[in-house]
Amino acid sequence: MAGTFITFEGGEGAGKSTQIRRLAARLETLGLEVVTTREPGGSPGAEAIREVLLSGKAKALGPLVEATLFAAARIDHVANTIRPALERGAVVLCDRFTDSTRVYQGDGDGVDAKTVAELERIAVDDVRPGLTLILDLPVEVALERIAARRGDENPDRFEGEADAVHRRRREAFLTIAENEPERCAVIDASGDEDTVAGRIWAAVAGRLELPAGTSPAEARHG
Amino acid sequence: MAGTFITFEGGEGAGKSTQIRRLAARLETLGLEVVTTREPGGSPGAEAIREVLLSGKAKALGPLVEATLFAAARIDHVANTIRPALERGAVVLCDRFTDSTRVYQGDGDGVDAKTVAELERIAVDDVRPGLTLILDLPVEVALERIAARRGDENPDRFEGEADAVHRRRREAFLTIAENEPERCAVIDASGDEDTVAGRIWAAVAGRLELPAGTSPAEARHG
Ligand SMILES: Nc1ncnc2c1ncn2[C@@H]1O[C@H](COP(=O)(O)OP(=O)(O)O)[C@@H](O)[C@H]1O
Ligand SMILES: Nc1ncnc2c1ncn2[C@@H]1O[C@H](COP(=O)(O)OP(=O)(O)O)[C@@H](O)[C@H]1O
Ligand SMILES: [Mg+2]
Ligand SMILES: [Mg+2]
Repeated sequence: MAGTFITFEGGEGAGKSTQIRRLAARLETLGLEVVTTREPGGSPGAEAIREVLLSGKAKALGPLVEATLFAAARIDHVANTIRPALERGAVVLCDRFTDSTRVYQGDGDGVDAKTVAELERIAVDDVRPGLTLILDLPVEVALERIAARRGDENPDRFEGEADAVHRRRREAFLTIAENEPERCAVIDASGDEDTVAGRIWAAVAGRLELPAGTSPAEARHG
Repeated sequence: MAGTFITFEGGEGAGKSTQIRRLAARLETLGLEVVTTREPGGSPGAEAIREVLLSGKAKALGPLVEATLFAAARIDHVANTIRPALERGAVVLCDRFTDSTRVYQGDGDGVDAKTVAELERIAVDDVRPGLTLILDLPVEVALERIAARRGDENPDRFEGEADAVHRRRREAFLTIAENEPERCAVIDASGDEDTVAGRIWAAVAGRLELPAGTSPAEARHG
């Protein structure tokens, strides 16, 4: 496909949404068409499924139902949003994708790796990201950012059991990056927004041939 | 598992709902616990997913999203309704199950057989029907019954392209029965309700060891 597919992964509070906005703006200044999207959701059918997932029934549904619903939503998202954009040559920036399903639904007593992989095959077919940016941040820093986002003065209440879960998820994202170094770049997400944006730009420039002959590597040195 | 799992399959108008009610009543007279259920739906999570499937968005969703949503609903239905009933020794009668997904979503340009089989494995695990009754009826007769059910005087409007689709589905159900003769019994669903109920009773009596030592074979001769 003509376009470029980049996914952003990592825990809550790592800065995915913030950095997607910044990268989109920078790529647009190069004259590229940029489509930003997110999961679960990103297309009308997927948004309908998102409601079931986020309705509060999700917890009762269990990880296997959740993973299967994510797959159903992703099929629709890929077919109606991501694939058409890539076919027209756009850069697609997606906030969470298959790695989040692996990490969140595959955690602990969750879905076995074989089933996660099979659902991934069914859902994405050949629409695999060319680059996955894994925004990595110490759990304490992420929790502080989330607390600040909520205007919450007491980040301690996220600790305890939840804290161990956050640590396991961070490790799981890093393991994916280790196993698939060609696709994944781990981005140190600590530091201010500009610093992180610079690291992301370097990874994108170093890894990707962008469409329409507009290379960020040139722009970086330009 | 201690219980007995029987699924009813076949096209619209074949008499599945009618015959499930009759078989349930007859089994209850033997003192058995009978649970009747249906797909899509049959448990709270599955009913929430059913709404997405039947909301009218389903057509736009495409067969692969549909098949995956059916799988998600089925996981919940099996976990919360079917498996617990079987574990307590009940007879579970289910109106449509995996064969309907194979036939409806696997038809024509639909989902490939490998994917259908994989979703089936994910959804049902070891909860496979001990007996599947495939209610078989000439398409014209089924269409007349549906028209009568709707109080519709003009069954012809179901003909044309839809007619060919109904014929393909009938063939697809018969092919499943041919390929899995141990599990499936084809029931001639023509004739009046009593006649069809008699054929179903004979199939159940001939094939199944019912729980609690109450055999319909004995009841038949008793
Ligand atoms: N580099 C950064 N330093 C400090 N705060 C940040 C940084 N990047 C993002 N934030 C803030 O942290 C919070 C979480 O960022 P967000 O982009 O929403 O993360 P995510 O989408 O990964 O959950 C937001 O309030 C955001 O403004
Ligand atoms: N053996 C039969 N002969 C005539 N009509 C029938 C028979 N069985 C069912 N019907 C009627 O045909 C219609 C379809 O039956 P139903 O049990 O709803 O089928 P299904 O659930 O397979 O769609 C209903 O109106 C029902 O009363
Ligand atoms: Mg975000
Ligand atoms: Mg019915």
